Amino acid sequence: MTSTEAEVKALLDSWSGAIRVKDIDRLMSLYSPDIVYFDVVPPLQFIGHAEIRRNFLRWFDSWKTAIGVEVRDVNIRVSGDVASAFMLHRTSGTLQDGREVDYWVRATVGCSRSDCGWLIAHEHISWPVDLKTGLAVRDLVP
Amino acid sequence: MTSTEAEVKALLDSWSGAIRVKDIDRLMSLYSPDIVYFDVVPPLQFIGHAEIRRNFLRWFDSWKTAIGVEVRDVNIRVSGDVASAFMLHRTSGTLQDGREVDYWVRATVGCSRSDCGWLIAHEHISWPVDLKTGLAVRDLVP
Repeated sequence: MTSTEAEVKALLDSWSGAIRVKDIDRLMSLYSPDIVYFDVVPPLQFIGHAEIRRNFLRWFDSWKTAIGVEVRDVNIRVSGDVASAFMLHRTSGTLQDGREVDYWVRATVGCSRSDCGWLIAHEHISWPVDLKTGLAVRDLVP
Repeated sequence: MTSTEAEVKALLDSWSGAIRVKDIDRLMSLYSPDIVYFDVVPPLQFIGHAEIRRNFLRWFDSWKTAIGVEVRDVNIRVSGDVASAFMLHRTSGTLQDGREVDYWVRATVGCSRSDCGWLIAHEHISWPVDLKTGLAVRDLVP
């Protein structure tokens, strides 16, 4: 891993760490001001810090426990001031309604290096969908 | 738009053009040999040309008409030999079973420049999902 790949990897590790403990301020500090976010939930896109912060707080509030985050198959390509990365995320824990959840999602991020270091400029998280039923397929294991 | 951004934009335009006329060979020529694809359908990921070609042929076969492709909100970041891009895609036409479809998806791509020019090294296409019903939300308009 090159030193710039390691810098982007550190950004992704900070992301996982902030999610685990639901630290919204630390998490938001990792996003570029012009962040565009394609989340697992509607709408098609969330644009800018205010929308994304509100969406993360909604998600954090749905958990009774800390959020389990496991990351695998991380792939990072970096050149100059742009990085493109993708990976699989496993999310697990207990929701406020008592349900135990444990699912994998696909995650893709685009990063840019500014005067403040590396920031996430774009993020895309999703489940695949069964075309026959229209239902998200949330029990897939890599 | 810089000249390298224009090169990546040309790659994305070639992608749309190949999809419209279901030209599988032209389409596959745009992907890097080590492509990893997160599609709207399961599994979590398709890896390499053979899996991705088979998945595209399945999708092409489901259409009676040509595939309508409209692209908007294209954002491209490029530095050196890596590009990160995202956009919204509208797909429309008539399926083999006679159903007229018309939906928007979110698309993110990671591109690399090799001796063969710019290629798509990663692609992620998805619908958002309604957490209450578990259903993909396929009627959103940007």
